Amino acid sequence: MVPTAAGDRLGVWIVGARGSVATTVVVGAAAVAAGLAPPVGCVTELPDFRGAGLTPVGRLVFGGCDITGVPLAKRAEQLVAAGVVPADLPAAVGGALAAAEREIRPGVAAAAGRQAPQATAIAAQLAGFRERHGLAHVVVVNLSSTAPQPGPHPAYASLAALRAALDGPEPVLPPHALYAYAALGAGCGYVDFTPSGAMRLPALAELAAEAGVPYAGNDGKTGETLARSALAPMFAHRALRVRAWSGTNLLGGGDGATLADPRAAASKNASKARSLAELLPEPVEGEVHIDEVPALGDWKTAWDHIAFDGFLGVRMTMQFTWQGCDSALAAPLVLDLVRLLGRAMARGAVGVQPHLAFFFKDPLGSDEHRLVPQYELLRTWASPGIPDPPA
Amino acid sequence: MVPTAAGDRLGVWIVGARGSVATTVVVGAAAVAAGLAPPVGCVTELPDFRGAGLTPVGRLVFGGCDITGVPLAKRAEQLVAAGVVPADLPAAVGGALAAAEREIRPGVAAAAGRQAPQATAIAAQLAGFRERHGLAHVVVVNLSSTAPQPGPHPAYASLAALRAALDGPEPVLPPHALYAYAALGAGCGYVDFTPSGAMRLPALAELAAEAGVPYAGNDGKTGETLARSALAPMFAHRALRVRAWSGTNLLGGGDGATLADPRAAASKNASKARSLAELLPEPVEGEVHIDEVPALGDWKTAWDHIAFDGFLGVRMTMQFTWQGCDSALAAPLVLDLVRLLGRAMARGAVGVQPHLAFFFKDPLGSDEHRLVPQYELLRTWASPGIPDPPA
Amino acid sequence: MVPTAAGDRLGVWIVGARGSVATTVVVGAAAVAAGLAPPVGCVTELPDFRGAGLTPVGRLVFGGCDITGVPLAKRAEQLVAAGVVPADLPAAVGGALAAAEREIRPGVAAAAGRQAPQATAIAAQLAGFRERHGLAHVVVVNLSSTAPQPGPHPAYASLAALRAALDGPEPVLPPHALYAYAALGAGCGYVDFTPSGAMRLPALAELAAEAGVPYAGNDGKTGETLARSALAPMFAHRALRVRAWSGTNLLGGGDGATLADPRAAASKNASKARSLAELLPEPVEGEVHIDEVPALGDWKTAWDHIAFDGFLGVRMTMQFTWQGCDSALAAPLVLDLVRLLGRAMARGAVGVQPHLAFFFKDPLGSDEHRLVPQYELLRTWASPGIPDPPA
Amino acid sequence: MVPTAAGDRLGVWIVGARGSVATTVVVGAAAVAAGLAPPVGCVTELPDFRGAGLTPVGRLVFGGCDITGVPLAKRAEQLVAAGVVPADLPAAVGGALAAAEREIRPGVAAAAGRQAPQATAIAAQLAGFRERHGLAHVVVVNLSSTAPQPGPHPAYASLAALRAALDGPEPVLPPHALYAYAALGAGCGYVDFTPSGAMRLPALAELAAEAGVPYAGNDGKTGETLARSALAPMFAHRALRVRAWSGTNLLGGGDGATLADPRAAASKNASKARSLAELLPEPVEGEVHIDEVPALGDWKTAWDHIAFDGFLGVRMTMQFTWQGCDSALAAPLVLDLVRLLGRAMARGAVGVQPHLAFFFKDPLGSDEHRLVPQYELLRTWASPGIPDPPA
Repeated sequence: MVPTAAGDRLGVWIVGARGSVATTVVVGAAAVAAGLAPPVGCVTELPDFRGAGLTPVGRLVFGGCDITGVPLAKRAEQLVAAGVVPADLPAAVGGALAAAEREIRPGVAAAAGRQAPQATAIAAQLAGFRERHGLAHVVVVNLSSTAPQPGPHPAYASLAALRAALDGPEPVLPPHALYAYAALGAGCGYVDFTPSGAMRLPALAELAAEAGVPYAGNDGKTGETLARSALAPMFAHRALRVRAWSGTNLLGGGDGATLADPRAAASKNASKARSLAELLPEPVEGEVHIDEVPALGDWKTAWDHIAFDGFLGVRMTMQFTWQGCDSALAAPLVLDLVRLLGRAMARGAVGVQPHLAFFFKDPLGSDEHRLVPQYELLRTWASPGIPDPPA
Repeated sequence: MVPTAAGDRLGVWIVGARGSVATTVVVGAAAVAAGLAPPVGCVTELPDFRGAGLTPVGRLVFGGCDITGVPLAKRAEQLVAAGVVPADLPAAVGGALAAAEREIRPGVAAAAGRQAPQATAIAAQLAGFRERHGLAHVVVVNLSSTAPQPGPHPAYASLAALRAALDGPEPVLPPHALYAYAALGAGCGYVDFTPSGAMRLPALAELAAEAGVPYAGNDGKTGETLARSALAPMFAHRALRVRAWSGTNLLGGGDGATLADPRAAASKNASKARSLAELLPEPVEGEVHIDEVPALGDWKTAWDHIAFDGFLGVRMTMQFTWQGCDSALAAPLVLDLVRLLGRAMARGAVGVQPHLAFFFKDPLGSDEHRLVPQYELLRTWASPGIPDPPA
Repeated sequence: MVPTAAGDRLGVWIVGARGSVATTVVVGAAAVAAGLAPPVGCVTELPDFRGAGLTPVGRLVFGGCDITGVPLAKRAEQLVAAGVVPADLPAAVGGALAAAEREIRPGVAAAAGRQAPQATAIAAQLAGFRERHGLAHVVVVNLSSTAPQPGPHPAYASLAALRAALDGPEPVLPPHALYAYAALGAGCGYVDFTPSGAMRLPALAELAAEAGVPYAGNDGKTGETLARSALAPMFAHRALRVRAWSGTNLLGGGDGATLADPRAAASKNASKARSLAELLPEPVEGEVHIDEVPALGDWKTAWDHIAFDGFLGVRMTMQFTWQGCDSALAAPLVLDLVRLLGRAMARGAVGVQPHLAFFFKDPLGSDEHRLVPQYELLRTWASPGIPDPPA
Repeated sequence: MVPTAAGDRLGVWIVGARGSVATTVVVGAAAVAAGLAPPVGCVTELPDFRGAGLTPVGRLVFGGCDITGVPLAKRAEQLVAAGVVPADLPAAVGGALAAAEREIRPGVAAAAGRQAPQATAIAAQLAGFRERHGLAHVVVVNLSSTAPQPGPHPAYASLAALRAALDGPEPVLPPHALYAYAALGAGCGYVDFTPSGAMRLPALAELAAEAGVPYAGNDGKTGETLARSALAPMFAHRALRVRAWSGTNLLGGGDGATLADPRAAASKNASKARSLAELLPEPVEGEVHIDEVPALGDWKTAWDHIAFDGFLGVRMTMQFTWQGCDSALAAPLVLDLVRLLGRAMARGAVGVQPHLAFFFKDPLGSDEHRLVPQYELLRTWASPGIPDPPA
């Protein structure tokens, strides 16, 4: 079961490994690797990335943790019922599901009690995962539910302060940030696909530098914000004056329920608003609503209304409706990110990876929010001629 | 009335000078120059273009030709009634309207009879315009109605053949192409804002080279195609598989009536389809309709429906509705184009100007159809540090 | 100025007489009466109402009260700038504006102090208005801003209790309900065009019976709810199962600002939700948002998304976008309502008028929320053959 | 297998019995009868129809004809793949599919040769079907593809002329009309769910009278026109002036391909246009497009744009998008129609049944196109207190 040679397999350890996105990632990776599905939605399978030296999808090894215990195979069946996964796939990739199932551990749910031992336990899980599969590199991906941003805390300012605080009796970090801490400390690359904000804490950025590992984030750009980052530059570059940009998101599934919590929604909305503010030259009117509509299941509908002025003050409008399936939009991006971060590790990259801004609503290390320039940055980074930095 | 010093004024000679767009250009340029309206929609007024050495809007001198005789002042009042121009502007810029009115000549309507003398007469009009105002440079802009593309003709293959044919008894060029011929021959820059296709004729490109003048075109990108060129790269770069892209355009006004002619509509649709084909990696299903709906007046509504596949074949859709006023969208782009082509003339540029692709549905000299990279090409060209080519 | 014969003129006394709707009512009635505008939007000008014996629009006499003092003529100019009223109308109907201006009195703004004298003062204003113009009937219309619903109060249970309480030192009724009290007591018909809920108080219904006057209400149905009351029966009668009906309203103008107050919005949303609950056989998911977007001015955009199941559980959706001008939608309905209530007074009708449900989001005296049956009820009531009740 | 007592079973003989709609009808009827699916979309299962004496869905007996030979069970699997039928249903109702399969005969494809013998053969098929199952009544439903309207022909003017012509060597009737002829002559009720126009031929109406059977039609109202018939009365009854009503329909599946034939599309569009003309007081601008978009499969998307004027000429718009699955929308209506026509037969009704207008785009025998009054007519007809006509 354990490969004797390390070489080219890449470990993917998912926080929230039993969620809809994670299950779609595992099912989809196996399906793509087996030729059962084309790699639609996988950016790194575009011709532009052919010579980039990325680990093939079939060489990814999955594991992770979750606070629920529903088996992956059952989650896959639920995704079939929801129309996200084709009916015949779970059986066809049963071996891959079982392999990932064996590598999922119970997750830390709540920030409670002394956290240093928790971090050590997580690090041990990661080390075990790496050793069992003989993996040169492991990327940890945060796919847990949207959580409130960590509030201010003096221990966040430096790694030394954080380490001291974690040894104290009170919890310091929210769970997802504790995972980031453990992952970086264990020498793993880290991708934050949620709006958690963990990697904006100076102490964690310092830890990444100390550990010599790369990281990327914040909040996967899969729907309304994706479309906004394609459209907003049109108004800006054509000197059209956007007066108001309003949005309503209807979504069912677990994400809808999570975002019914105003604090979680605030975290999400902050990402969305920051994106729009960066894309347009002036502040604009308009609110963003996120409504839980269970009847929509895993589908999300977003309606955006843009009121803008043209020449001589003529008022015009644009509206769009986006009807997408979040799990199906997010999963291939997760595959892209782990492959790209794995390559960054192989190239010896350390710290924030700004060329991955393309994937995020609120990109770390980059002020570029326009989608196409983000793509060009990524494409350039991945071009075969670009030399690896010295080890 | 004629300025004594030439220097920095730039002549703008409009084919179709009494149309909605042309009237909005003249009214709007005067309003912006007088500080009566902000330069919304004027790309060249963005901060990125501050050091580009462009002629100020207030230094443009307007003239042109049209086959109708309705006075500009009356057209301006019609645009007030249509909600395109604010009620108080025509009176406020009455002097500018009168000045342009004096420089409008009857236009050549139909291709009939011997065309060499017609070309000579047009060239004489242009020379007179240049001399009366002491203009160093004149840019001719084609704002006439959408016309059918010129069919194949042996005389289009070379300048020599064309010159010979123009001397014959039969008409060779459609009117708008005759204007292009005359303009280039008279040493004017030429901008084709319609889908005429004139500058795709090898003979005319040869003439531009011989005359040492720059040109740009084809078919101003103001609405549905503008939005498509912003959105389509999102699908392509995210590896989402567009299955069908359908569009319906409802428009009143003169343009709607013109496009009720299937041959003119074919010309327009060819531009639109070419743009989409260039933007997406695979052919897609879907038609484009252009309906004349007089009740909409100068407003245009476009609805686009995009069916695409995501990961594992999940079907998703995006729709948008664009509600814009074409004259108000086109007019500031015309100002941008004449200022940019005037600057190109000052820099000694000759032939097709690919950096102006940003403005066109079917850009000449460029394969880049994505809006934001088009903007970046333009911005780079206009950067102050870029040296002028040697004279 | 005062007509010598009473007879056929009908008094219209507007609470909120300087608002956008009221100003549009006065301008529009004069324009229609003078033949300057067709009666588009006036239900009572449809052929079905030709023999209904309604007061001609030109025989309406306007007055009212408002807490602001901005002259009607100035308000009319603001509506011109907003695109609600054609530019030349205010001058053309200046006489009508001046006549209404003379009959506008300062309004009671806040519930403060002893209210019995306030009610007496209002009744005196109404009596004066009736006498000055020799009016047989006066209809009072509440067009004031949306206000919170009156909370529970023991004095609301009966007319006797209310009268006693009004004599006390504490205010009992919110201002708009005080106007209803005074109007009914003064023998005027009463139309509540806002979601005030005043006429749901038993004490006021008792007063209408005692005074022998008719009334109608609640909350004019002008946009999103109008469309819902046309569309929802389609789902119900076709046995399609609506799972979720979500709505977002974007509006500028004064109404948008008022509805930014959560208590006022709650009042509005209660009307909307009650309507949907009555129209569909089962409770549905979905929220309604009302966003203030000043950039939209007097225009309102509503987007509704309806998720429904068809046969064998197939999931389908319908969406609509409504882009309307509230003042222009409401004003002709106000003219309809006063003419119809005036006719009801002439026919001796007393108490709630259920046949006017057609006009309201939350109709008093009627469980019929479907638009077309509401119309049929109204049409039948207005048919010439229907005898007046005995005096 | 053949029931010994006739009594209460009702025969349903479908022209186009292997199509998507027919297959959904057979699968769905069995599923509803077995309690495997709720009767969503079945109007006759609403509480209003409880006492109407309709044949229970489980007592319907299915047969019919088709020009293709694909087994029903295979068609059902295709509908599963298309997302129209739940995955487990075809197996669960396998018996019902097999029973219907046994009663499907090859259909007449093209109008060729002498038609009298063809009509006799069809009548014999119907008689056999009736006898094998001991059915008191059989309803024939036309679910074949949209076909061009029959052109003018002298034989259509009277039954005598038609009979004479059918005996001649040339074909007279298009296939679907030949089925109507045979069905009526065989004493079957007839429902035309397509826009065939057969029952508008005087000869066939005469035949129905002679044979003493009822019929109903034309063109099931399932999507865009359904929504129009709910919405258009809103504009008409509110005296809003519709200026233009434009529509674009995108559809895949067989229907999309059929409607790519301009003559078939013309037939469909005529139904749609007639409906709108009846619903609005004035002619309106606007076109209707039907585009084949195979990527949409069995789903249909319609976008409608309505430009209307309000008070004082203010221009407003409404748009809607309908995303439905035609087979799932049509199938329950077919069940409704056969049950209602069966009941009409039991009540001795003869000729056109105007109370069924509710179901059709272009209803026979009725000028009422408004959806809700159509429903009220139907409900009244089905009320238990309404006596059956004398036998």
